[in-house]
Amino acid sequence: MTNFLKFGTAGATALMLATPALAQDAAADPTPYILTTLLFLIGGFLVFWMAAGFAMLEAGLVRSKNVTTQLTKNIALFSIASIMYWLVGFNLMYPGDAWVMDGMVGAFFWTTLEPVGLAAADATLDYASVGSDFFFQLMFCATTASIVSGTLAERIKLGPFLIFVVVLTGFIYPIEASWQWGGGFLSGMGFSDFAGSTLVHAAGGFAALAGAMILGPRIGKYAADGRVIPMLGSNMPLATLGTFILWLGWFGFNGGSQLAMGTVGDVTDISRIFANTNMAAAAGAVTALILTQAVYGKIDLTMVLNGALAGLVSITAEPLAPSLLMALIVGGIGGAIVVFTVPLLDKLKIDDVVGAIPVHLVAGIWGTMAVPLTNDGTSFVTQFIGVVSIGAFVFIVSYIVWMILKVTMGIRVDEEAEIMGLDTTEMGMEAYPEFTKG
Amino acid sequence: MTNFLKFGTAGATALMLATPALAQDAAADPTPYILTTLLFLIGGFLVFWMAAGFAMLEAGLVRSKNVTTQLTKNIALFSIASIMYWLVGFNLMYPGDAWVMDGMVGAFFWTTLEPVGLAAADATLDYASVGSDFFFQLMFCATTASIVSGTLAERIKLGPFLIFVVVLTGFIYPIEASWQWGGGFLSGMGFSDFAGSTLVHAAGGFAALAGAMILGPRIGKYAADGRVIPMLGSNMPLATLGTFILWLGWFGFNGGSQLAMGTVGDVTDISRIFANTNMAAAAGAVTALILTQAVYGKIDLTMVLNGALAGLVSITAEPLAPSLLMALIVGGIGGAIVVFTVPLLDKLKIDDVVGAIPVHLVAGIWGTMAVPLTNDGTSFVTQFIGVVSIGAFVFIVSYIVWMILKVTMGIRVDEEAEIMGLDTTEMGMEAYPEFTKG
Amino acid sequence: MTNFLKFGTAGATALMLATPALAQDAAADPTPYILTTLLFLIGGFLVFWMAAGFAMLEAGLVRSKNVTTQLTKNIALFSIASIMYWLVGFNLMYPGDAWVMDGMVGAFFWTTLEPVGLAAADATLDYASVGSDFFFQLMFCATTASIVSGTLAERIKLGPFLIFVVVLTGFIYPIEASWQWGGGFLSGMGFSDFAGSTLVHAAGGFAALAGAMILGPRIGKYAADGRVIPMLGSNMPLATLGTFILWLGWFGFNGGSQLAMGTVGDVTDISRIFANTNMAAAAGAVTALILTQAVYGKIDLTMVLNGALAGLVSITAEPLAPSLLMALIVGGIGGAIVVFTVPLLDKLKIDDVVGAIPVHLVAGIWGTMAVPLTNDGTSFVTQFIGVVSIGAFVFIVSYIVWMILKVTMGIRVDEEAEIMGLDTTEMGMEAYPEFTKG
Repeated sequence: MTNFLKFGTAGATALMLATPALAQDAAADPTPYILTTLLFLIGGFLVFWMAAGFAMLEAGLVRSKNVTTQLTKNIALFSIASIMYWLVGFNLMYPGDAWVMDGMVGAFFWTTLEPVGLAAADATLDYASVGSDFFFQLMFCATTASIVSGTLAERIKLGPFLIFVVVLTGFIYPIEASWQWGGGFLSGMGFSDFAGSTLVHAAGGFAALAGAMILGPRIGKYAADGRVIPMLGSNMPLATLGTFILWLGWFGFNGGSQLAMGTVGDVTDISRIFANTNMAAAAGAVTALILTQAVYGKIDLTMVLNGALAGLVSITAEPLAPSLLMALIVGGIGGAIVVFTVPLLDKLKIDDVVGAIPVHLVAGIWGTMAVPLTNDGTSFVTQFIGVVSIGAFVFIVSYIVWMILKVTMGIRVDEEAEIMGLDTTEMGMEAYPEFTKG
Repeated sequence: MTNFLKFGTAGATALMLATPALAQDAAADPTPYILTTLLFLIGGFLVFWMAAGFAMLEAGLVRSKNVTTQLTKNIALFSIASIMYWLVGFNLMYPGDAWVMDGMVGAFFWTTLEPVGLAAADATLDYASVGSDFFFQLMFCATTASIVSGTLAERIKLGPFLIFVVVLTGFIYPIEASWQWGGGFLSGMGFSDFAGSTLVHAAGGFAALAGAMILGPRIGKYAADGRVIPMLGSNMPLATLGTFILWLGWFGFNGGSQLAMGTVGDVTDISRIFANTNMAAAAGAVTALILTQAVYGKIDLTMVLNGALAGLVSITAEPLAPSLLMALIVGGIGGAIVVFTVPLLDKLKIDDVVGAIPVHLVAGIWGTMAVPLTNDGTSFVTQFIGVVSIGAFVFIVSYIVWMILKVTMGIRVDEEAEIMGLDTTEMGMEAYPEFTKG
Repeated sequence: MTNFLKFGTAGATALMLATPALAQDAAADPTPYILTTLLFLIGGFLVFWMAAGFAMLEAGLVRSKNVTTQLTKNIALFSIASIMYWLVGFNLMYPGDAWVMDGMVGAFFWTTLEPVGLAAADATLDYASVGSDFFFQLMFCATTASIVSGTLAERIKLGPFLIFVVVLTGFIYPIEASWQWGGGFLSGMGFSDFAGSTLVHAAGGFAALAGAMILGPRIGKYAADGRVIPMLGSNMPLATLGTFILWLGWFGFNGGSQLAMGTVGDVTDISRIFANTNMAAAAGAVTALILTQAVYGKIDLTMVLNGALAGLVSITAEPLAPSLLMALIVGGIGGAIVVFTVPLLDKLKIDDVVGAIPVHLVAGIWGTMAVPLTNDGTSFVTQFIGVVSIGAFVFIVSYIVWMILKVTMGIRVDEEAEIMGLDTTEMGMEAYPEFTKG
């Protein structure tokens, strides 16, 4: 089942008008509607929890002098996404028939929910409540922004970052996601991205990449002689906790994207998705563990964590069709991608503080391109077109926005602030005021 | 839908006797009963999780020398609440027809659950299992106690604090909550407090306020010349994690308070509640972010965290009726309340270590008074009467209990212990024994 | 309801052949199947979350020089368990009719899930989807391995530990668990272990005990004059967070083990289980709190945390039948066991870093032996036979595996590495590189 079914979920009224026979059939069993709505609520709170996961992961992987700033970015970006997705994003992403540019740009109006105490006769009984769908989809929008914050850590100003989040969550993400999940031109072409390897993860990665290129690397990251200077994460338990939180949340991310729980087939599919999602994460972690031992002679915990996350990103484009063995292979390759892409980025002097570009962008593309391996209804060409369309749009628009922000207000803190740490200079609040720095 | 429906949930036997026709109708569809029970179980575990949220929030906001003590208080208070609510609280709160003082004080007996393998014919099919209801309601009782522990941190003795928790969770909370949710005099008047802005949050805040007044501020908090000396929280990632946990748990807190999930209308209402709850939190965080930037020139992370929490507390009295725009306004005002009330408390030299009084008491009152803005069936006068009744009862009884504890056993550690830190003197176990204090 | 019903859940095809009438009855209500599948999915993600709980608990209770290693062990063991349980464990544990040794050793083949879009007519409508069952059971397997990692912390090599995990999760756990939950010889005798006090927790404890005996205590733990040298945990908030996570996850662990949610009786039973599970944890914590105050004159937070966990382990063998009062007693005794067993182990010079043996092994046996107190269909003799059978098997096989690992590759780091800390010597990555060690 593809996410194409999401088409038309905004605007319950419009849909009800389109399905008068169903809506007026008071005898219809409400249980599937209730169960699918419940799926969105559970899936939604699990994906909400991923916001905490990103916050902990990033707080653990930055140096202690920038932790308060990173935490602030994470709670602020989620809050901004919540408001922007209501104000414009949800209807931009699910325009139903109300496109401004057909299949390309949706309608601009804010989200309204069903009335209190909705009667069964007024509900879209073959789907779920608009409120639950909004809640669930909002979390995906916020996830896209979370991906950006890690890459740009330790040198970006808080203000312009938050302005970028406004644009990303209000406009960039909803528009590109509408191309597929809103019934836009990519869904018409047969593109397939079940829960968003490209629509969410690679998109976030492209926005981060554009920012990282304009922002430049941290001071001292790349020595004049070409060596890469390690800048160690300050708190490994937090990074590990963040990874476990993300892993947990991903069951909601992928499982909820089944978009239906009212039949034997749907709930069994969700079970497949849970099992495959877990397998891909495990395979990513084990692959990174084995490879870092083999290549570097020591297991690297941050690589193992990112390996698990890359496994999750990889399976996200198609968590349903693969067998458990295929899920293991898809996720394992995701884990390998991390191990080999992290050094590659450093060669390009693109400074990605937490490894979000390998994990979300590169593994996201891999996962999307791997869909035809298990899903007969898809083609490599169409998958490629989807990745390129979304990648180009997100990268170019993000690049322009970052450039405007750079020119108008500046996006980078000054050198002294960067060396002192953003917590002291930008926030005036240390994360660990009592622990002496080594 | 108001929580008035909770009336009469204790004592399944009594209810079954009252509804013989239903109980004997073996053909009735059990699905609504199952779904509502499931709502309580999911909602209950989410609210359970808030206990961890309070523990992390408070551990992050106290100084490192008092962290072990604060953690101990949190796990102990939850455990005590679990026992006291079983021993007396649940039936005191939901007396059914068994009032000791009509509409004021319920019955004193411990909780018994339905037998194993309950037959459908013996169940209250129009509600949920007693066990799930007890589980869910217990978590609210524990939340009330969690609110108190943060305010009184860093100088209260562990023993008397835990004795206060016994009284609060066994008697004070269940009695005042029975006035509304147990079908007592406030529910008869038309008071409305959907999930407990006043019954849980302001009540906890009033108990904390009484304690803080008797306990006095920490040594050195208020200088002789009137200046307020900042005492920085020791671990911002923990405080942020705690906030995210509370935010997550709140979906269960407010969503579960719908008390029904068996119909299209109910599950759609729960969706509204989830979306509104999230919006209010986001608005509280963003408002605090903007205001601290505007007023102090720097964004204050702890204010943003408390702003999100205040948004959550504000929407708790009526998370269903508001539109998303109204939820944004209600939550945003909650966030503003925190920014302006924290300094006010300091002027009064009431030392509230984690800001629980602004967040839970002041924003809780705001949320309760805002109910008539969106809920036509309520009035400002009745809301005011509810707040005053509960506030006066909880504050006065708490004040008396704290005074008795002060006179009999003392509630404050001696000066040397306070300066050394409670972890060394009271507990003999440091929270971070290897990290040098700065 | 005993877990004996799990018998035959692997191999949906086989079961469907055995129930042709049901499978072909297209008119059968799919709702119970959907709800039970949902129970497994929710229960499964809650038990997944316990992996994070163990990671945080252990990271908090080891010294900071070994934290990265401990985190790596935890995420790696979960990943390995995920793969091994798919590759062989699940079918070894639920062989249906395909035993290699009747009632003793199951079939060796990997797990396959139902096809995508399963038709209701092809589903085992009286149970749940295989995928959900696999997902849920996998988490129990991983839990068994998590128990081992804490005991052996701070001196075991990473490689041999992970190899042991392969054997434990692929073979040892699935085989002993098949004796009961797979319909093997113990279930035939009437042994009762609802959610695994013995099958999971004591089993993990026996494997840990064998390892600890062969590995020996940490350098400096036991002075020549017999004194026990305390080695303090480095991060109490993490240990507390881990405990709260485990407590939360346990609702899924015990509640999901009802294995059915499609009837009034089943969901009401799950409610009982939630309430009892919470009560036992609370009682364990309060008992440890009171006892450490009484015996040592100070409340010991780590004892309180382990007391809560021991309460949870104790109630796991029978969380359904007890009244809340009996749950309090069973859990309270569990908490007392911890307080008195921890020093006992030290007298035997068995160095259990996090107290996993008292919590999981000793309290697990207590819980299993306590079943006949509340469950009439069980006997002390049979319970004893079950504990001894499983204990002997797991201990002996684990002992042999540990010995083989010791002889072939060595299981202990060298003295210098142990003193320096495993994070530097084994991993090359400190957990807190910026915090000075005290």
